[in-house]
Amino acid sequence: MNFKLIVQYDGTDFHGWQIQSELRTVQGELTGALSLIDGREVLVHGSGRTDAGVHAEGQVASVFINRQITKEKLRAATNANIRSDVRVLEVNPVDETFHARYSAIEKTYVYRVLNGPVASPFWCRFALHEARELEAAAMEGAARGFVGEHDWTAFSAAQSDVDSRVRTITGLSVRARVDERAQSRLLEITVSADGFLRYMVRSIAGALLAIGRGELDEESLKRAIESGERPRAIVTAPPHGLTLLSVRY
Amino acid sequence: MNFKLIVQYDGTDFHGWQIQSELRTVQGELTGALSLIDGREVLVHGSGRTDAGVHAEGQVASVFINRQITKEKLRAATNANIRSDVRVLEVNPVDETFHARYSAIEKTYVYRVLNGPVASPFWCRFALHEARELEAAAMEGAARGFVGEHDWTAFSAAQSDVDSRVRTITGLSVRARVDERAQSRLLEITVSADGFLRYMVRSIAGALLAIGRGELDEESLKRAIESGERPRAIVTAPPHGLTLLSVRY
Repeated sequence: MNFKLIVQYDGTDFHGWQIQSELRTVQGELTGALSLIDGREVLVHGSGRTDAGVHAEGQVASVFINRQITKEKLRAATNANIRSDVRVLEVNPVDETFHARYSAIEKTYVYRVLNGPVASPFWCRFALHEARELEAAAMEGAARGFVGEHDWTAFSAAQSDVDSRVRTITGLSVRARVDERAQSRLLEITVSADGFLRYMVRSIAGALLAIGRGELDEESLKRAIESGERPRAIVTAPPHGLTLLSVRY
Repeated sequence: MNFKLIVQYDGTDFHGWQIQSELRTVQGELTGALSLIDGREVLVHGSGRTDAGVHAEGQVASVFINRQITKEKLRAATNANIRSDVRVLEVNPVDETFHARYSAIEKTYVYRVLNGPVASPFWCRFALHEARELEAAAMEGAARGFVGEHDWTAFSAAQSDVDSRVRTITGLSVRARVDERAQSRLLEITVSADGFLRYMVRSIAGALLAIGRGELDEESLKRAIESGERPRAIVTAPPHGLTLLSVRY
């Protein structure tokens, strides 16, 4: 039986999603638990890799399980065999053609920035801290320039094994709100696309942060998107602010 | 100059508030940083002790600093010399009669319970996980019985060095809401009093949890409050769900 899993993790103590020998990874943790349950080495497919330090509220994985087991028992048994920084929220049987990676239509990420004079013990794992006040309105304005189909070479890792760097960004928003626990302003950059290149969200977040700090203007950003040449003001934002929110099928 | 500090911490990796040799404590961490800044051993007073594993969003401390220093510089210098799981949010000069503990009029704590089939990587440090559905309405109803002046012997640690166990609970509420990140129900038990005995909030939370699970009825709880005899159904809730929210002066 083919199962679709919704998975959450605090990426802080993981070397990313992708399985690696000797290193703790989310795929490795799930593979270990599910192989134990199924009594054979299973293959767990994710919707995509997340880098070391990146979190997920709604990562999707798929796995074939030979044993007869209900979805409730599969979820409970998996959660009983993994550490508390990763949890399987939902398990559902799916058609055997479903594949977490190849069936994905759209993904949504959020990049969080705690924007205030002092960092927060409650957000230090999950948001970048920026003490200078960011101009959220300028960031929101510039965000619109990213929407659409483009070659995102200027906004991705130099090294890559993909054939095409063309992706379509279907939505990009910048929202500011007060986080009550931190007693500080929290900015959320939310971006959806049909697919993402490596470092793409973190490069977009870095570009919007440069706009918010007044280090980059909207015109230069537009030129970068059109020309594929990256200005030096755009620094890839660190991984811990990034969270994979959801995957659409 | 006497300063009032508002302090936040993730209590997970601390052996509580109170300074202890060889162990990492919040008071110890602040004393170390502030002594370094003032060039002499300072005394940092907290509004009260929090136990190992208990968090704070608004703990208050007071300290006399001999050096001439602005509040902004004192905050920045302190935060630069402590780890990221504790932060000084605010520093303000206060009258020399101000004492974080003796001047306190009222304190407010919240006990958080993530109430759903699966725990959350985002709340595992800060909320108790309860898989069985809790009856929030019954808990809210029973909560009213706690409000008022009582001897709280049945709801505190057996060993204690206090003279009186009479305290006045000024407010107690139970609120349920959906936490979007965890995609789960989050219950918040918020309690205010003119002072708390050791384990008092965690005993109250344990009593309300027993009500919510249907293991204790409101009548038995009322009898326990009046008689000072604790029924066996009331278990002190674990420390990691507890957070000191604020202190009123």
